[in-house]
Amino acid sequence: MRILGIDPGYAIVGFGALDYTRNTFTTLQYGAITTKAHTTFEDRLSEIYDDMTQLLAAVKPDAMAIETLFYTTNQKTVIAVAEARGVLLLCARQAGVPVFEYTPLQVKQSVSGYGKATKKQVQEMTRTLLKLPAVPKPDDTADALAMAICHAYSYRSKQYGVALTKRQQMGYF
Amino acid sequence: MRILGIDPGYAIVGFGALDYTRNTFTTLQYGAITTKAHTTFEDRLSEIYDDMTQLLAAVKPDAMAIETLFYTTNQKTVIAVAEARGVLLLCARQAGVPVFEYTPLQVKQSVSGYGKATKKQVQEMTRTLLKLPAVPKPDDTADALAMAICHAYSYRSKQYGVALTKRQQMGYF
Repeated sequence: MRILGIDPGYAIVGFGALDYTRNTFTTLQYGAITTKAHTTFEDRLSEIYDDMTQLLAAVKPDAMAIETLFYTTNQKTVIAVAEARGVLLLCARQAGVPVFEYTPLQVKQSVSGYGKATKKQVQEMTRTLLKLPAVPKPDDTADALAMAICHAYSYRSKQYGVALTKRQQMGYF
Repeated sequence: MRILGIDPGYAIVGFGALDYTRNTFTTLQYGAITTKAHTTFEDRLSEIYDDMTQLLAAVKPDAMAIETLFYTTNQKTVIAVAEARGVLLLCARQAGVPVFEYTPLQVKQSVSGYGKATKKQVQEMTRTLLKLPAVPKPDDTADALAMAICHAYSYRSKQYGVALTKRQQMGYF
């Protein structure tokens, strides 16, 4: 199963694509779409649309995993992030890629097996699971890869009826 | 000048297109894009994208006037409305139509000349200014037309240096 994890934003959209087959991850591509600050907001949305459409065509994922946005997220930016997120959801729909949403807590629990794990611990676990030489930068990219891992485990647990958190607590990765 | 007023939403997008030339309004087209509740949210965004793209191609406006979204708007829906609004901004950008934003207060003041006017008063003034037989339904459509009027007056006041509220208070419509 090929998964594209997304950390939504209007200045930076983190992405990470990986294959998950027979409990093994193959990291395909990761990075970030960045938009210029000194352009109109519509220009930024348009850049996100073009780049994400291109990325989806190149990666051809079976699923997009994207962070759930809450009203309680940063008040100053939540409207603009939601506007960009709408564009990302549109891109997925136009590419025929189903969308799955996970909360930051679900990602933490799924990747590190522990809901109170620090951001650093989740990033380190992501690096280990994907056998990467270093934690990807920026944070948005690392978060996107963690999101993709979360979907892989969530999908597996649904498919086989495995209690995900239980397995995680036992360290069965 | 041809203006497309938009009241953003994910279930209903109100729109109203009018020409404003020599202090006279000509109403071109108004209505609402509605999306089905029993589809995925991505499907709804996609419907909005397709319909708005088509509308922009048909109307060919010189400007899109759209309501500013605030964090303090309805907490339950603000994220989803913002996501749909992002798609609407994208459509405008892709059609090469510049976007202008107005707050509900600006629209009230501009259309009725009075910031504390009721929704009904603004709707009635919109009907009168556009010489419509009745207040358009749903409310989203009436709001979109009021938004377009607001842009017409705002643009005029900027262009000629007229103190907009002063003129409005004097009933110079």
